[in-house]
Amino acid sequence: MFYTDNRLQFPVRVERPNPLFARALQQAIGGVEGEIRVAMQYMFQAWGARGDPKYRDLLLNTAAEELGHIEMLATAVALNLEGAPLGLKEQVSSDPVGGAVLNGINMKNLLSAGLSAMPVDSDGVPFNMSHIYASGNIAADMGANVAAESTGRILAVRLYNMTDDPGMKEMLQYLIARDTMHQNQWLAAIEELGGNEAVFPIPNSHPQAEENTDFSYAFLGFQIDGIEMPQGRWSDGTSIDGKGTFEMRPMEALGEEPDLGRARPNSGAQSEQL
Amino acid sequence: MFYTDNRLQFPVRVERPNPLFARALQQAIGGVEGEIRVAMQYMFQAWGARGDPKYRDLLLNTAAEELGHIEMLATAVALNLEGAPLGLKEQVSSDPVGGAVLNGINMKNLLSAGLSAMPVDSDGVPFNMSHIYASGNIAADMGANVAAESTGRILAVRLYNMTDDPGMKEMLQYLIARDTMHQNQWLAAIEELGGNEAVFPIPNSHPQAEENTDFSYAFLGFQIDGIEMPQGRWSDGTSIDGKGTFEMRPMEALGEEPDLGRARPNSGAQSEQL
Amino acid sequence: MFYTDNRLQFPVRVERPNPLFARALQQAIGGVEGEIRVAMQYMFQAWGARGDPKYRDLLLNTAAEELGHIEMLATAVALNLEGAPLGLKEQVSSDPVGGAVLNGINMKNLLSAGLSAMPVDSDGVPFNMSHIYASGNIAADMGANVAAESTGRILAVRLYNMTDDPGMKEMLQYLIARDTMHQNQWLAAIEELGGNEAVFPIPNSHPQAEENTDFSYAFLGFQIDGIEMPQGRWSDGTSIDGKGTFEMRPMEALGEEPDLGRARPNSGAQSEQL
Amino acid sequence: MFYTDNRLQFPVRVERPNPLFARALQQAIGGVEGEIRVAMQYMFQAWGARGDPKYRDLLLNTAAEELGHIEMLATAVALNLEGAPLGLKEQVSSDPVGGAVLNGINMKNLLSAGLSAMPVDSDGVPFNMSHIYASGNIAADMGANVAAESTGRILAVRLYNMTDDPGMKEMLQYLIARDTMHQNQWLAAIEELGGNEAVFPIPNSHPQAEENTDFSYAFLGFQIDGIEMPQGRWSDGTSIDGKGTFEMRPMEALGEEPDLGRARPNSGAQSEQL
Amino acid sequence: MFYTDNRLQFPVRVERPNPLFARALQQAIGGVEGEIRVAMQYMFQAWGARGDPKYRDLLLNTAAEELGHIEMLATAVALNLEGAPLGLKEQVSSDPVGGAVLNGINMKNLLSAGLSAMPVDSDGVPFNMSHIYASGNIAADMGANVAAESTGRILAVRLYNMTDDPGMKEMLQYLIARDTMHQNQWLAAIEELGGNEAVFPIPNSHPQAEENTDFSYAFLGFQIDGIEMPQGRWSDGTSIDGKGTFEMRPMEALGEEPDLGRARPNSGAQSEQL
Amino acid sequence: MFYTDNRLQFPVRVERPNPLFARALQQAIGGVEGEIRVAMQYMFQAWGARGDPKYRDLLLNTAAEELGHIEMLATAVALNLEGAPLGLKEQVSSDPVGGAVLNGINMKNLLSAGLSAMPVDSDGVPFNMSHIYASGNIAADMGANVAAESTGRILAVRLYNMTDDPGMKEMLQYLIARDTMHQNQWLAAIEELGGNEAVFPIPNSHPQAEENTDFSYAFLGFQIDGIEMPQGRWSDGTSIDGKGTFEMRPMEALGEEPDLGRARPNSGAQSEQL
Repeated sequence: MFYTDNRLQFPVRVERPNPLFARALQQAIGGVEGEIRVAMQYMFQAWGARGDPKYRDLLLNTAAEELGHIEMLATAVALNLEGAPLGLKEQVSSDPVGGAVLNGINMKNLLSAGLSAMPVDSDGVPFNMSHIYASGNIAADMGANVAAESTGRILAVRLYNMTDDPGMKEMLQYLIARDTMHQNQWLAAIEELGGNEAVFPIPNSHPQAEENTDFSYAFLGFQIDGIEMPQGRWSDGTSIDGKGTFEMRPMEALGEEPDLGRARPNSGAQSEQL
Repeated sequence: MFYTDNRLQFPVRVERPNPLFARALQQAIGGVEGEIRVAMQYMFQAWGARGDPKYRDLLLNTAAEELGHIEMLATAVALNLEGAPLGLKEQVSSDPVGGAVLNGINMKNLLSAGLSAMPVDSDGVPFNMSHIYASGNIAADMGANVAAESTGRILAVRLYNMTDDPGMKEMLQYLIARDTMHQNQWLAAIEELGGNEAVFPIPNSHPQAEENTDFSYAFLGFQIDGIEMPQGRWSDGTSIDGKGTFEMRPMEALGEEPDLGRARPNSGAQSEQL
Repeated sequence: MFYTDNRLQFPVRVERPNPLFARALQQAIGGVEGEIRVAMQYMFQAWGARGDPKYRDLLLNTAAEELGHIEMLATAVALNLEGAPLGLKEQVSSDPVGGAVLNGINMKNLLSAGLSAMPVDSDGVPFNMSHIYASGNIAADMGANVAAESTGRILAVRLYNMTDDPGMKEMLQYLIARDTMHQNQWLAAIEELGGNEAVFPIPNSHPQAEENTDFSYAFLGFQIDGIEMPQGRWSDGTSIDGKGTFEMRPMEALGEEPDLGRARPNSGAQSEQL
Repeated sequence: MFYTDNRLQFPVRVERPNPLFARALQQAIGGVEGEIRVAMQYMFQAWGARGDPKYRDLLLNTAAEELGHIEMLATAVALNLEGAPLGLKEQVSSDPVGGAVLNGINMKNLLSAGLSAMPVDSDGVPFNMSHIYASGNIAADMGANVAAESTGRILAVRLYNMTDDPGMKEMLQYLIARDTMHQNQWLAAIEELGGNEAVFPIPNSHPQAEENTDFSYAFLGFQIDGIEMPQGRWSDGTSIDGKGTFEMRPMEALGEEPDLGRARPNSGAQSEQL
Repeated sequence: MFYTDNRLQFPVRVERPNPLFARALQQAIGGVEGEIRVAMQYMFQAWGARGDPKYRDLLLNTAAEELGHIEMLATAVALNLEGAPLGLKEQVSSDPVGGAVLNGINMKNLLSAGLSAMPVDSDGVPFNMSHIYASGNIAADMGANVAAESTGRILAVRLYNMTDDPGMKEMLQYLIARDTMHQNQWLAAIEELGGNEAVFPIPNSHPQAEENTDFSYAFLGFQIDGIEMPQGRWSDGTSIDGKGTFEMRPMEALGEEPDLGRARPNSGAQSEQL
Repeated sequence: MFYTDNRLQFPVRVERPNPLFARALQQAIGGVEGEIRVAMQYMFQAWGARGDPKYRDLLLNTAAEELGHIEMLATAVALNLEGAPLGLKEQVSSDPVGGAVLNGINMKNLLSAGLSAMPVDSDGVPFNMSHIYASGNIAADMGANVAAESTGRILAVRLYNMTDDPGMKEMLQYLIARDTMHQNQWLAAIEELGGNEAVFPIPNSHPQAEENTDFSYAFLGFQIDGIEMPQGRWSDGTSIDGKGTFEMRPMEALGEEPDLGRARPNSGAQSEQL
């Protein structure tokens, strides 16, 4: 169950409203690297977490935090849209540096939302909940979260580098710091689960005897003749999960050309296929 | 540039076609954990890879491999649909165990594709390319790939546990092994980039002095009064990136209730908001 | 800012797990009539609410409530999936009434989420955030909320009629009651804004002198010759907004056949169009 | 069955083509507040309307009208794209006011449609038919239609305020007037069904004895300690449906922390979860 | 402008309602091969048709026809859902042949639409308007229409083969015949435009001197060494557009390995990429 | 199975990077007319091709070619984004011609991909795999491919006309030529299958005696009284498939107004509908 206090988690201040920056901030709300994604992802992971309940609590706690981040960013979008042109005439005069302001905004922030934030990305594409990765496997979920917080922090850094509004920079410094923590936090959860050697390959509950072990630690090359395979840590030495030794070999087709036979009558194919 | 030889990477054999298993296999083709996703993800990561070219080559090599996996799975879907009912009458008699076969298939595999595979998931939802994570940051990309291969192997294991067709089990043992390798391979790439302490926080090119360091390694609690914060590796000790020390504290709102003021005339609001 | 206490808003109890009912419940989570929709809709309306702040607080309060409803339903889905078959063999024997259980589930609840809830609807389609209606007009928002709670309560009633599990019926009786309140609550907000005559037409800030008043209260008929126009409250008497009188008349085309002229060279048209 | 006469319902005239306004108009075609949505929504509501047939006829009649509105807007988009630049060079010289014209258009209107309209919104996102709300409950449908026409008229007003082209203003004055009528028309249908007290709570066919009446008219507070609940018409007095009395009380969790137990073997979880 | 007469274009009669067939019919409404698609496609093509107005009229005429087909199919879906179970208990007894009826329906037809049709496909996926192909090139549009009517007729034939309800077979015989006509009609339009030699390559307004003519009529082989290229009409003889001669040759990479250089500072990459 | 050699199929060279052109090129990657679409479409058609295997080989061969085209275009996008502004300040000074560069880019190319290509269209909308048309009918597939290559070449021509960068023009001349070949190639496949008279109506395996032949070659008019039907090759003469004679007649409704009766109790309708 969730509660609210109507206040912002961290102050949101905009000194020089910029509608183009409002558009960029939308990516941190409704982009696939954004805050709706992590908030909902942590919730659904929590609601499907079987086993030790501490992971459920950990996930719900951070989900609540992320809800507050969406709120901060939505407020920042609305504040950056203050003063944006509502008419085509208005926009020319309000545009001393030569760019037409309306060109650069998500039109829907004006037309659909009346100068407010929306759950869309920086090109106006609505967030799609298929991006909520919650696998029922606690280690995979933690890995997905490290990945989400990595792209999240990259995005926050790009936004930070884009603006020179002091209020926005301050807000983003907070969000970047939280992403630092969250990357570390989910990595810590993997360590709590035993670290890479205990955790991988995910799922660790599948007996490796029931995989085709000839191929479990082989880097296979799919180059045509005469092209070299790329070498690195992945081609040599003990595997990261500690359960095998990397090797490297070119691959060739082990199967035949498949043959699906003739089409069935009544299946809507051409007569020539029957 | 890509080439083909018309053959299958690994043999695909179905002893007892099962339309319901065809539906399940679709998840491995067009699901968010599926092979289209990794094939295209590795390609786009490669095409945006700046810096050391070996990562580009590594990514393209594995992309080519994954294309062959889609092909194997698409063949497996078509073979499992052999003999599926084309009519409502036919289905009753062909259904000794009591379940109506047509109930359990993705109807589109019959109606749209004529008993063949489609780029959709196991509930018939088309794959959406927003799931191609390619960030321009090589470490984040590797992390996204570990995550993708983790959910991919979980899915393959679930499919393996679902079927008892020997041909299908054999094919899945191969794919599970490849996912083992790929999890290790991308983890190896992170090690090649210096390991967790060099790589995190991602992006490592942002000076941490420019984040709000008060919040960089603090586990913040968002519980209402009287509820305990979840403890673990994340609440104590050196952070995983080696750059801070975890601490734990309850959070309270640092900002005020936001005030967007009155709506502007001509903005489509109600008069009462102006 | 949001908080949590890890507990459920209302008890969730399942006596006889039913995977098909789990599928149906998904509609109340990720369907367009579902709880993610209202939770996020009320948040975005709050974050764009200009004018009297009490509407912001009202919206955030109910958003927090709805988050707890998603949580209850996600728990209900997981509990209904307890004991669902993981294999094709298992399913036959576990299916005394003749239907193949796996046929009836959202396959992704098993394959992607490991027998847990997902942010998808009852056919496995992910929720899409374009359904978050937040217009920047407080009256339109309240109307959208009445509509959302109406379809929400219809859905809850259909689910209630579908199940005979006592625990599920109890949970749904709670949710149905909350939808009763929320329908009334948003209607009350419209009354607080002055009721239908003050509020409509939305937006009430547009001077009606600047619409084509010939057409403002006329029911226009688009039937071919000889077909009667449907009569009712809409064809006669004072309009509901109190600002006009309904009349009824057949419509005929007032414009000509449009002519876009020839295509431009270099525009990719056929030569014949130039 | 439908007929056409090739003519426009109302004249469409553009004096000064403006590609940026073409983009804005797209929202009224393919946006969620747009005309495709209402045209298709009224059709599907009609085709599922059980009970008194006059509602079916009413809906089909207005659907036919809305088809003509899409046609008008599509023509307006094409006329506004007349003269838009086809090349990057061309655009500089054609851009005296300083904004790069191509920046501001939906690129697809040029690249995909050759300077014509598309069924997409003002940011180029295709319309998605999940927005067709047709519930099988005639009262809920009427409410959804009031909501749709409310956001529709807000959008038309915003477009009206954006342009100063006399032809476009004239067309929009017609469309705004029709939205006035349609808001009133669907409200009139609710009155025909008995008005708020007869209609609500929707569906009115569910016996209220079978909801948890303790919660049917209570405004529940989800604030943390010390934060006040928002007061208004919703917290006091007779409910709008006339069937209860509003009251206000803080909410606390009535359920426990949920426990999904251990994961099942073969379900793809980590060993630690089993 | 469009008109209606409330009647069905052709009689729709269901003798033995079958909810599973209702689900299949949904594909013909909201599938990519369905009637919404062609109706809307022909409209948008008409509204963007520059040049000879007869194509606009032709397209609008057929669009009006297709609207009536959606109506017929929506009615057929509702009639096939008559008597479908509303409860889990009810479904067992109503299911003599052993399949659980609810398993086989689009759950949303019940939960969202109350036993009526929806603009979704046979797996419950909403139609997406990106499938409206309207290119601004009249010949390409005609070709897209031939393709649409081809998959449309395949679908209708598959539905015809699936059912043995006499009313449904009669309705489908009508729709199959109309698809025959429409395939021929759009092919006739291509002939009216001059036939394959005049029309191709599309667009015929681009001077072929400005393409790389070395590659205009060459079948390039992308096989690895030792695999033969597929031969046929495409590898030999005059090209279909009459403007070249087919030849066949293996392809090899003409470009180098691309090099995007180092990443820029501030671009969110890892330090190692700078 | 697929292979790669890391090289580009054809040289990709950009003399004057232009971020706006990068955005336009995205349409050729992730637009519905783009290269991902054809690459994946040809693969799925191949994997479902029953009957003569030469079509499978033909399709796979061209699929491999198209993968290389995506690669070329992705490289072109990245090269055109070289030097794009990363900050709002930077953009003003870098914008001599008056348009704000950031206005015109897909923001996600910067924020999500770090100045690289993405699988999205020119307005930032991700490619959706529902556009992969693979029907199980080889003739319908060939027709769909002609259509895809037609819109593909139109798009390439529009891009060619948009740019004056010599490198980009050279690359597009190659791609336009390949589209010429591919249009001819798929038309040749239709000829190989017997040409229009053998192939149509698709599917040719359905006995035409089982369609309602009264309507198979009739152009039906859906105009209201007094409006003429459009005449052309489609209204007179032998049909294109050689199996009938075109005629032309106005259509009138052959069915009645449908009646779905009363709603069922428990179906969530209003009492008035029962």
